[in-house]
Amino acid sequence: MRVNGQPYRTVWQTADEPGVVRVIDQRRLPWSFEIEALRTVEEVAEAIRDMHVRGAGCIGATAAFGMWLARLGGRDLFGAARLLKSTRPTAVNLAWAVDRMMVAECAQEEAQAIANEDARFCRRIGEHGFALIEEIAKRRAGPVNVLTHCNAGWLAFVDHGSATSPIYAAHDAGVPVHVWVDETRPRNQGARLTAWELGQHGVPHTVIADNAGGHLMQQGKVDLVIVGADRVTRGGDVANKIGTYLKALAAKDNGVPFYVALPSSTIDWSLVDGVRDIPIENRSDDEVIWMDGPDREGRLHEVRLVAEGSLAGNPAFDVTPARLITGLITERGVCGAGEAELRRLFPPEPAQ
Amino acid sequence: MRVNGQPYRTVWQTADEPGVVRVIDQRRLPWSFEIEALRTVEEVAEAIRDMHVRGAGCIGATAAFGMWLARLGGRDLFGAARLLKSTRPTAVNLAWAVDRMMVAECAQEEAQAIANEDARFCRRIGEHGFALIEEIAKRRAGPVNVLTHCNAGWLAFVDHGSATSPIYAAHDAGVPVHVWVDETRPRNQGARLTAWELGQHGVPHTVIADNAGGHLMQQGKVDLVIVGADRVTRGGDVANKIGTYLKALAAKDNGVPFYVALPSSTIDWSLVDGVRDIPIENRSDDEVIWMDGPDREGRLHEVRLVAEGSLAGNPAFDVTPARLITGLITERGVCGAGEAELRRLFPPEPAQ
Repeated sequence: MRVNGQPYRTVWQTADEPGVVRVIDQRRLPWSFEIEALRTVEEVAEAIRDMHVRGAGCIGATAAFGMWLARLGGRDLFGAARLLKSTRPTAVNLAWAVDRMMVAECAQEEAQAIANEDARFCRRIGEHGFALIEEIAKRRAGPVNVLTHCNAGWLAFVDHGSATSPIYAAHDAGVPVHVWVDETRPRNQGARLTAWELGQHGVPHTVIADNAGGHLMQQGKVDLVIVGADRVTRGGDVANKIGTYLKALAAKDNGVPFYVALPSSTIDWSLVDGVRDIPIENRSDDEVIWMDGPDREGRLHEVRLVAEGSLAGNPAFDVTPARLITGLITERGVCGAGEAELRRLFPPEPAQ
Repeated sequence: MRVNGQPYRTVWQTADEPGVVRVIDQRRLPWSFEIEALRTVEEVAEAIRDMHVRGAGCIGATAAFGMWLARLGGRDLFGAARLLKSTRPTAVNLAWAVDRMMVAECAQEEAQAIANEDARFCRRIGEHGFALIEEIAKRRAGPVNVLTHCNAGWLAFVDHGSATSPIYAAHDAGVPVHVWVDETRPRNQGARLTAWELGQHGVPHTVIADNAGGHLMQQGKVDLVIVGADRVTRGGDVANKIGTYLKALAAKDNGVPFYVALPSSTIDWSLVDGVRDIPIENRSDDEVIWMDGPDREGRLHEVRLVAEGSLAGNPAFDVTPARLITGLITERGVCGAGEAELRRLFPPEPAQ
C-alpha cells in the first residue's frame, strides 16, 4: 500500500541490493517511518523477536527471506530454522514458512513466492469483502461505516491486510468508506498502526476508545464490523485481540453484520470449541500500566496510566464464539462460521 | 472515606472559612492530592466544566454550594442557575440540585443538606448492595470478584460512592472482595480514581483494559458487575460512562449478575426510552488523542496516542437498556430495572 504516495510492502528484496532484505521498522510507527536493511539470518531473527516486524503474514514472509539469507551465507539450515522458529514460538505462519523454505529448490524464488502468496491471498480477501461493502453502499447514501479492532492491516501482512483489504478495495474502487478505528488498548495498535496506514492511503477514519463501539452501533453509525483473527477453530470460533468479543456482542445486539477476515493459514483444524480450548496469552502488566508516545515537541516519554500500588491484568486475546459471527472472509470466498461451511471452501486434501 | 488515613468528603464548607467551598481537585489524582478553594459561582462552574470535580453526586453537591456562593455574592440566581446547568448536559443531579437551591429558604443549610443527603443515600446503597455480595460469598470460597467501570466511587459523590459503596461495606465487614477495575478510556477514571480510592481504603483490586472484561466473564472470573449511573429513565434504561453497555452485554451473555447502583436523584422520571431520548455528550477529541501521566522520575508529560493527522471521536456516555440489567441498587433497596419496580420503591409524591 502507499506511504507518502509511494507503494510499499512490509518486507521485500530487490535485484539491485543482492543479499539484503528490507523491512519497515514498525516499532517506530506511527511517529517515524524507517526502513531497515537485514543482511543475516541473525538480523532477521532479531527483527522478528524484537517486533521490528509483527503480524502473522509479515512474520512468515520475513522468516522466509531469513532462510534465504542463511543459504546465501552458507549457514547451517537446521540451525537457522531453529533460530527463526524460536523468535515467536506461538506464531503458526512462522514455522510454516520456515518449513516450506527447508524443502525449497530455489530459496530466493520460494521466499518471494511466500511473500507474493501472502499478498495475493490478502488481495482476494479484499475482493470478496469488497462485495459486502458495495452491497451496503448501494442501499444507502453517504460512506459505508466500517468498524475494526486492532491492526489486521497491510502492516500485519505483506500487503493489503486481512480486515483492511476490503476497505482498501472499496476505497480504491471509489466506493466511499469511513472506518471507526478502535484504539485497541493496551498496545494501541488501532490508534497507532491502523490509523496510520489508513491515513497514508487516504482512507477517511476516526479513532475511538474501545468503549465507544457499542454506542455507535446503537446509534446506527456502524454498517459493518470487520476484524482479523489470530486463530480460528474449525467450528468457527475466533481468537483475536482482546475486546473483539465485546464488539461482536454489540454487533449481534444491534443487527450489525460482524465479519472476520483471514487467510486460511489462520484456521486451526484441530480445534472446535475456541472458548474452552484456545490458550490465551497473559502479557506483562507493564503494557497496561505504562504508555509511551511523543509530547508536543516530538520527544518520546513513557508515562504511568495506573495509580501507584495498583496491580494490573493483561489477557492479550479473547475468543468470539461462532454464534456471534455473520461470516468469515477468506481468500476463497465468504462463508458462515462453522465446520460445514469452512469445509465447503477448504475440503480436506487427499492423503498423499 | 479515608485518604492517607484521614477521613474526607469530595466537597465541603466549614464555619472557619466563610464564603469558601473546598473540593478535592480530581484532575491531579492519583498523582497528587490537592484541595482547591472555590469562591464564586463562576469558579464553581469552571470546576464542574473542566472536571476538577466530576461524578453525579459530587457535581450536584458542588453546584448546590455554587448557588449558595451566588446568593452570598448577590448574583442573579436565574443567571447562576443557567450557568451551572450549562456545564455538563448529561448529568441529571446537577439540574436537580440547582432547582432545589432556587426554592431554598436558607441556601447554606440547603446546600449542606444536599451534601449530607448524598452521603447518607450512598451509605444506604452500600447496605443494600452488601447483601448481594454477602450472598455470593456464602456460596463459594475465595474473594467475591466484582467488576466495575469508570469511577462511581466516593470521589464521584460526597462520600462512600454508589457502585463502590457495597464493596466498601463488604470489605469493612470482613467479607473478602476483589475488584476488577476497568481502566475506562479515554479519561481513565478507573485506572486513576477507582484504583486510587480502593487502594487508599485497602481493597484488593486489579486494573484491566476496558477490552478485557468480556474475556474474564467467559472464564468465570467475575461474580458480579456493579456500575454507577449518570441518568436512569423510569423505564430502567441507564446512561453511564461509555463502555458500560458492552459490559452489560457480556454479563448477560455469561449469566453474570449486572447491577446499577444509584441514588434516586439520578432517576429521570420524564423519560422511558433511554437509548432514544437521553442526550449523549460528545467531548473533545483531545481526550482520546492525548494522555498525561508521570514518567519514572515523577515528571508529568502529555503524550500523543493516535497517529498524526487522524481524527478521533469521543462520545462520553452510552445507554444500557433495562433488559440487560439484573437490578438497581438504590437508597431504598434493590429493585428490577422497570417502571413498576421503581414506582414500588419510589411512589409518586402526592400533588401539593
